[in-house]
Amino acid sequence: MAETFRWGVIGAGRIAQKFARDMQAVEGSEIYAVASRSGAQEFVKLFKPRVVYDSYPELAEDPHVDGLYIATTHNFHFENARLCLQAGKPVLCEKPLTVNAKQTEALVQLSQKNQVFLMEALWSRYLPLYQVVRELLNENEIGEVLALQSTFCIRANMDEKKRWLSPQLAGGTLLDLGIYPIAVSQWVLGENPVGVQSQAVLSSTGVDILLSANLQYPSGVISQFTSSFMHKARNDLTIHGSKGNIILKEPFWGATTAVLEVGGQQRVFQEPFRSQGFEYQIEEAVRCIREGELESPRMSHADTLANMRLMDTIREQVGVKYPFE
Amino acid sequence: MAETFRWGVIGAGRIAQKFARDMQAVEGSEIYAVASRSGAQEFVKLFKPRVVYDSYPELAEDPHVDGLYIATTHNFHFENARLCLQAGKPVLCEKPLTVNAKQTEALVQLSQKNQVFLMEALWSRYLPLYQVVRELLNENEIGEVLALQSTFCIRANMDEKKRWLSPQLAGGTLLDLGIYPIAVSQWVLGENPVGVQSQAVLSSTGVDILLSANLQYPSGVISQFTSSFMHKARNDLTIHGSKGNIILKEPFWGATTAVLEVGGQQRVFQEPFRSQGFEYQIEEAVRCIREGELESPRMSHADTLANMRLMDTIREQVGVKYPFE
Repeated sequence: MAETFRWGVIGAGRIAQKFARDMQAVEGSEIYAVASRSGAQEFVKLFKPRVVYDSYPELAEDPHVDGLYIATTHNFHFENARLCLQAGKPVLCEKPLTVNAKQTEALVQLSQKNQVFLMEALWSRYLPLYQVVRELLNENEIGEVLALQSTFCIRANMDEKKRWLSPQLAGGTLLDLGIYPIAVSQWVLGENPVGVQSQAVLSSTGVDILLSANLQYPSGVISQFTSSFMHKARNDLTIHGSKGNIILKEPFWGATTAVLEVGGQQRVFQEPFRSQGFEYQIEEAVRCIREGELESPRMSHADTLANMRLMDTIREQVGVKYPFE
Repeated sequence: MAETFRWGVIGAGRIAQKFARDMQAVEGSEIYAVASRSGAQEFVKLFKPRVVYDSYPELAEDPHVDGLYIATTHNFHFENARLCLQAGKPVLCEKPLTVNAKQTEALVQLSQKNQVFLMEALWSRYLPLYQVVRELLNENEIGEVLALQSTFCIRANMDEKKRWLSPQLAGGTLLDLGIYPIAVSQWVLGENPVGVQSQAVLSSTGVDILLSANLQYPSGVISQFTSSFMHKARNDLTIHGSKGNIILKEPFWGATTAVLEVGGQQRVFQEPFRSQGFEYQIEEAVRCIREGELESPRMSHADTLANMRLMDTIREQVGVKYPFE
């Protein structure tokens, strides 16, 4: 591996561009190549990769590429990641890693069989503020954790042709938005819920456009959240403890501010991003790949699998099934 | 009926005292008598009722009493209210009206059979701010209502002998705290949920000390709330609409401030209490009784019954059964 880590990017849309922009804040990494089936003009103009492919297999086979970032729509993650892992290329793949647990299981097996790195780009988990929150929890600042509450509700364009309303593209609030409260709950509690309850409103296209869920953990802790494309909410996340609360300020999934409330006093913690927040997951992926790890200890295969299984359960409860499943 | 409305009070504890204090802000009403089995010294000293009884039947039979307010613990509401209705005395009874729907049904039947007024003292419903919220909803300020979210979480004394932890006294967060988010949801939506989901943590005594629920209405609207004795939360209530939100500021159940958020703009509405907030329900009860009504149109028998049925369902889901049921 050369001194500079050379990234290939599959997909060239909005998220790929955010990734490439944040790469500029990562020392020792560069956007080396991009592959897009639908054209990458804007991406190329902005980030000037050395190589541009119009086929994914060519990129995956490029011997100069050290790792691949997958930024296509959810429904393609599985086949894109499989292609890369089969070619022996480390993978950082946008969340959700796949559209269901079955696909994730297959990728995890392939990663282990081929001894190739695989990580879900759940960027929240690598943010500096989340490390601060972890320390506050470890130091027992809020006592025993009892409940979590959050919203991820935005007013989205409700044109039926949009990606997030398309069953073919694995749309719905759960995979786009609800994944964050789920991932944070799992991260805070470090275990899997024993009780999952959810209700939703489905679009005319058949995906969830408003979803409310309660996750109850073995210890009794309940995590309650709502995700929505139809309305805007406060979009912070509170971890309620026996002695006090930690609030991850809006947007909690990309938070730079946390407030610790104990005994009527507030302490504010701030961890601004160097760039827009993807830089930390990039650094973690590079570190893991350079050290020959197959997964990140901060977002393990087991973590991703647990989240996917939870989302499968919730989709089953609310009646969202994708046509290709 | 004399010009001044003469109230008799059953029970002389904290809530009875709040009622009597707020009476001072109600023109044409007075605390005429009190009855307490466990002594009413403090009440008598503070509010100087003309008559003090140590038996409830004597108070209920007092021909000078125009109406009775019941402020005993939940478990006694049914027998206290029945006594009053049988004596032909109008009843304003603390929430919850009874501990379950079966008891409420019996009281409603008795009220109708004996043609005597009966009203649940769910004080939120009569507050001036709630009328403002109703107008905002009627004027379609936030568009279509899509979701409600609220918490009623306090740090309570967890001594097992406390009333709120006692199954014999019908303790638990639901009947003390959860009744408010339920009542507000029902009031906003004017219909009954078709989906009820709840999870709880039970105390060693067997009552709910942390409870999270989702109520889904026929239109799809989801009301999500948590009630807790173990932790403090934000305790406001948000009505999310397609165009904007209305936030009833903490404590939402006794709110004097509402914030209307539309298009990035906020408008603040304030309706301070004349006293501590019970004065409005007292005025409504007196108005109804003077006009010969059997129920208040603002908190009808059907409303109370619907709330009780919902709470029965939730208690069944989380496994809270009182020993006397």
